[in-house]
Amino acid sequence: MSDLVPLFQPRSVALIGASSNSKKYGYWTAKSLIENGFEGDIHLVSRTGGEIFGRPTYPDILAVPGEVDLAIIAIAPKHILPIMEQCVEKGVKCAIVVSTGFGETGPEGKELERKMLEIARKGNMRVQGPNCMGTYSSAKSMNASIIDLAPGPMSLVLQSGNFGIDINFNAKSRNLGYSCWATIGNQMDMRFHDFVEYIEEDENTKVLLLYMEGLRVESEEDGRKFLEAAKKTAARVPIAAIKIGRSAAGARAAASHTGSLAGSEKIFDAALRQAGIIRVDSPGELLDAAEAFSKCKPASGKRIAILTDGGGHGVMATDFAEKYGLEAPVLSDATQAKLREILMPHCPIKNPVDLAGTPEADMWVFDRCLDVLMKDPDVDGIVIVGLYGGYADLSEEFRVLEMDVAKSMVEKINAGDKPVVMHSIYQPQHPECLDYISEHGVPVFGGVDAAVKTMGVLSTYSELKKALRKESGNELPSMPADRKERASAILDAVKAAGRKNLVETEARHVLRCYGLDIADDYLATTADEAAAFYKKIGGKVVMKIVSPDILHKTDAGGVALNIDSEAKARSAFEQLVKNGRTYKAGADIFGVMLTPMLPGGVECIIGSSHDNTFGPTVMFGLGGIFVEILKDVAFRVAPVNMPACRSMIREIKGLGMLQGARGSKACDLEALAEAACIISQLVSELREIAEVDLNPVFALEKGLSIADARIILHG
Amino acid sequence: MSDLVPLFQPRSVALIGASSNSKKYGYWTAKSLIENGFEGDIHLVSRTGGEIFGRPTYPDILAVPGEVDLAIIAIAPKHILPIMEQCVEKGVKCAIVVSTGFGETGPEGKELERKMLEIARKGNMRVQGPNCMGTYSSAKSMNASIIDLAPGPMSLVLQSGNFGIDINFNAKSRNLGYSCWATIGNQMDMRFHDFVEYIEEDENTKVLLLYMEGLRVESEEDGRKFLEAAKKTAARVPIAAIKIGRSAAGARAAASHTGSLAGSEKIFDAALRQAGIIRVDSPGELLDAAEAFSKCKPASGKRIAILTDGGGHGVMATDFAEKYGLEAPVLSDATQAKLREILMPHCPIKNPVDLAGTPEADMWVFDRCLDVLMKDPDVDGIVIVGLYGGYADLSEEFRVLEMDVAKSMVEKINAGDKPVVMHSIYQPQHPECLDYISEHGVPVFGGVDAAVKTMGVLSTYSELKKALRKESGNELPSMPADRKERASAILDAVKAAGRKNLVETEARHVLRCYGLDIADDYLATTADEAAAFYKKIGGKVVMKIVSPDILHKTDAGGVALNIDSEAKARSAFEQLVKNGRTYKAGADIFGVMLTPMLPGGVECIIGSSHDNTFGPTVMFGLGGIFVEILKDVAFRVAPVNMPACRSMIREIKGLGMLQGARGSKACDLEALAEAACIISQLVSELREIAEVDLNPVFALEKGLSIADARIILHG
Repeated sequence: MSDLVPLFQPRSVALIGASSNSKKYGYWTAKSLIENGFEGDIHLVSRTGGEIFGRPTYPDILAVPGEVDLAIIAIAPKHILPIMEQCVEKGVKCAIVVSTGFGETGPEGKELERKMLEIARKGNMRVQGPNCMGTYSSAKSMNASIIDLAPGPMSLVLQSGNFGIDINFNAKSRNLGYSCWATIGNQMDMRFHDFVEYIEEDENTKVLLLYMEGLRVESEEDGRKFLEAAKKTAARVPIAAIKIGRSAAGARAAASHTGSLAGSEKIFDAALRQAGIIRVDSPGELLDAAEAFSKCKPASGKRIAILTDGGGHGVMATDFAEKYGLEAPVLSDATQAKLREILMPHCPIKNPVDLAGTPEADMWVFDRCLDVLMKDPDVDGIVIVGLYGGYADLSEEFRVLEMDVAKSMVEKINAGDKPVVMHSIYQPQHPECLDYISEHGVPVFGGVDAAVKTMGVLSTYSELKKALRKESGNELPSMPADRKERASAILDAVKAAGRKNLVETEARHVLRCYGLDIADDYLATTADEAAAFYKKIGGKVVMKIVSPDILHKTDAGGVALNIDSEAKARSAFEQLVKNGRTYKAGADIFGVMLTPMLPGGVECIIGSSHDNTFGPTVMFGLGGIFVEILKDVAFRVAPVNMPACRSMIREIKGLGMLQGARGSKACDLEALAEAACIISQLVSELREIAEVDLNPVFALEKGLSIADARIILHG
Repeated sequence: MSDLVPLFQPRSVALIGASSNSKKYGYWTAKSLIENGFEGDIHLVSRTGGEIFGRPTYPDILAVPGEVDLAIIAIAPKHILPIMEQCVEKGVKCAIVVSTGFGETGPEGKELERKMLEIARKGNMRVQGPNCMGTYSSAKSMNASIIDLAPGPMSLVLQSGNFGIDINFNAKSRNLGYSCWATIGNQMDMRFHDFVEYIEEDENTKVLLLYMEGLRVESEEDGRKFLEAAKKTAARVPIAAIKIGRSAAGARAAASHTGSLAGSEKIFDAALRQAGIIRVDSPGELLDAAEAFSKCKPASGKRIAILTDGGGHGVMATDFAEKYGLEAPVLSDATQAKLREILMPHCPIKNPVDLAGTPEADMWVFDRCLDVLMKDPDVDGIVIVGLYGGYADLSEEFRVLEMDVAKSMVEKINAGDKPVVMHSIYQPQHPECLDYISEHGVPVFGGVDAAVKTMGVLSTYSELKKALRKESGNELPSMPADRKERASAILDAVKAAGRKNLVETEARHVLRCYGLDIADDYLATTADEAAAFYKKIGGKVVMKIVSPDILHKTDAGGVALNIDSEAKARSAFEQLVKNGRTYKAGADIFGVMLTPMLPGGVECIIGSSHDNTFGPTVMFGLGGIFVEILKDVAFRVAPVNMPACRSMIREIKGLGMLQGARGSKACDLEALAEAACIISQLVSELREIAEVDLNPVFALEKGLSIADARIILHG
């Protein structure tokens, strides 16, 4: 059972710092708790004593009779430690510290939090906050916040009270309320993953919303706990999140606002998707998504049909469909034939289906066309746009008719198996038929943009869920059983030598331990050895200087290509070593590596870097200009399985390059996915690795060839 | 004087088809005209006679006393022609045909429109519609529509009555009204350019809004007239436009809705920008832009300062700044120093400037910080976000204070030289201080997204205006004076031979006539000639088959590279001719062209295609994979000057490739711009050219080399 059950379903609550002063938190929170009708015991604790809201107070929590599941603490920081001690002594299971003046104010506050956490941990008490705006739970009708919150299908976890207010205004105007609502404040103890985990088991939650400024991470395990919790919860409950700091300037601003060391935004974005979370950018979008998830059937794909009265709005919806990752394909012949039986010849029926003014003669065309579209197995969702809701203005007869048709449509939609969202230019006026539709399971929007975007969110969730399922399996490339031991031995030797950078021969060795297909290499320490190795390899050979002191081999004149004789190998050896010494006097030169020249192919990069929030990651991109000019790369938090790697590779914009551009043959995408997958396993199993860079990797028609490999350990 | 003066400023109006039947257009239009208090004579024409709204009616327009500037025609199509004749006889200057049942219904309707237009042209009468929802003009308090429209600073020209209703709902909720409002219907006579031209002289219009489904073009001149009118008007009045059909599916849907042959969406998009028009996607965005332009000072650049109470909203604004093409740079040391004098150490001041709760202690920090930012010459615009407007909820004292501070801020903003837009989470509740701010020149939004996007629109307009100025000059590369005559002679010869495709030697000759730097070519008709030409050129030579019947020379085995001796030239000649005959029996082979091998460089494409809407265009892109996989190309409607070509080249995403990627030298962008500019002149002067394709063009450190050239004439 989640530690947070006593937070959201307490049998009894004690408010420590309850107050009769209407300017204080302790007053507002007491008022909220009482007025919202908390279904348990409320105990008010106040050092000044007397009655508050006509209720007795206790001088301290120890004086409260019976058990206390949840303590809400609204007192100044200087008094916090003994209060926490008392809570622990009382056997309180969860505490919410709403007061400010802790970690957010500087080192002293951080130190105070450290002490608080020590007390809590020792006493098995979980703590929300400090510096938060409290908690709401419809399960117990508990409003332990100072905001006017109503029950409903959403749960919302926020890193900002202001956004709590902001989002709640929006929610109220849509009659949307909450199952659980919590502001996490400084995340001293309870973090996003605790809440996400709890929601997985909360049957009342139809959609989970997060407002995030950054995860608080003491170690990468915190980031990973969030990912794992989200994956599990997203499989049951759609999760939509705002994460601010998306832009470079925004990330700078977020760091100065939250004071936290941010990981890479690109990786955070990838991690959210990997965890099955839908990322949105504004409170409005968050609520649009919430409304859709709490009302609509799930979408099984991205093919939508658009039903419109008004050609322009139909075309606009079609444009937005593309923008938001949906498709509005030409409807099947069978469906078109059925529609043509209903609609006159001047009405376009390919998709959009345009009623083109006919509802004024016969309102029921809406209902009949909807019925046809609901039954089309090639339609995953329906967006109705245009004028519905305004016919009532024309006459009383139309008003009645519009309501009747609305009821019939709603019935079909609720009996059907696909989501329907609606736009009407009359939505802002709230005509009764639109209110009826909205109250019966169909979100109605005033903008075509929002309607289609929301359908896009429904479709995205279905895609994410499919990916979650596929990416949770254990399909991996075959890797030697003793890989970890053998590779560790190499890393240990490097560390023992006081080095952080593996030289290329070592890096290649590590990759080989993991079963990566990489050409043999030979380390020559004399010109004679170079000649002998050349003879062994034959054909054309590449020679590279091997030195932990020379990272940029090309800059150092440390690379020779197309060596095709023993004599050339010999002289190249001398030249490379000489160049190396010139480049860096006193460089420790291990020798010169010989490898066969590899066939060229499409230049790619496979790599791994360490993220502050999530730890080891894996990256794939096209090499050369694609990565340098276009930054065309895809990421995953490591480790990942083969389905994840296959989809990562397909994310890059220049994918066409690998699929046979300009008449060339398609590359072996499976081999690339296997290499990326192995790298993700490697960096996950050997956490001392900070960075891997296979660059370039040449993608071939069959297999791949790794032309350079770099591994760097944590410092 | 514009032909449309009698449309928007008529001294007298006749409504033909006036009716007392409240279900008819002729009733609603009469009602609108009368109730809106038209400042001129209203004459009601009705065949059934009797009084309407207590006014006398006339049996036909000829019976109306005095002059009639404007006739509004609301009668069935079958009666239209004699009515039009009568209007002409009466000397009516403009007519609005609101009736439906014309060109939009099919060929018969189109034929009827043709006859109507003939009558109108002969009689010097301009016609709006048919199939439109009428016109509004605040100059004469004339509402000749059936929609409730109010006076204000916007003008709106629409291709859809439904969008007229849609946008007007939005406008009303913002207290925004119109100077001119018109629905253009089938664009039989009056087209977008007529309205855009008129608005240029309408002093009451602060912003022009367009809703477009497609330009009606009988010839490319119609497209060009729109561009020219827009350029002229946009220099004075900001123009924002919705143009539906942006996506591929949307373009298909638009074609089926409007029945028009669409030009290329990419070119339409480029043309709008070239004309100085800001493109938006939804009615909401259109009104956001309208509100900003009618209230705000112009932005002089894209550097914004963000002033917030609430860190999260500040970061979110920073994120949106990047998304909408703005910058939120770190503020200058001088400005930061001034802000630090006002704000406590825990308030971030780099940008965003985060008041971080301090307004609750001293509301005037808002005003003082705003003052500092208004005076910073490195700030082009200010976005205020967060909680302003909600402090009033805390106490009566705060309510008064918040209003005082609002007044002071508004005063500073109006006295200043930069635009300020505002977001408040309380905006949807319309607190009095926000209403005050909004009514005094500062748009206030409920979403951070909309606020920042709108500032982005202000900044975009300033960029577009700068570009309009630069791109209207006559800076051109030097071109020979006799270019047109000499090139025409070549084209004439090709046409005389019954051909559409120029062979490469002819295409090169045409380019040379226009002063393009292209290597000499020699057309050998025998192996001996080939050898002789080789001797003349020397070094390495390229040989290509020249035949109007062989378009794909490489596929035909018609290209030989690296020819470096007379003997090789001779045998290559034989081989190429033989390959050509094998590839296509009976091909008319003119010979084999010899040109010097050119130095390689970054592969580019410069070309021109003919657009259905706008006629000749010019295109630039990186070649090879960039154009094939990434579709990374930029367009302009031709002709354009050098500044336009310079900016076109800078539009491509892969620009970095030309600026010295991967350690290579930067390319000669000026030479590329010159070549593009010359092509744009060529296709504009020689309208028989349908297509030009210089592919590849190698961009070099100095100059460029054109490796292949193709020109195709209209069929």
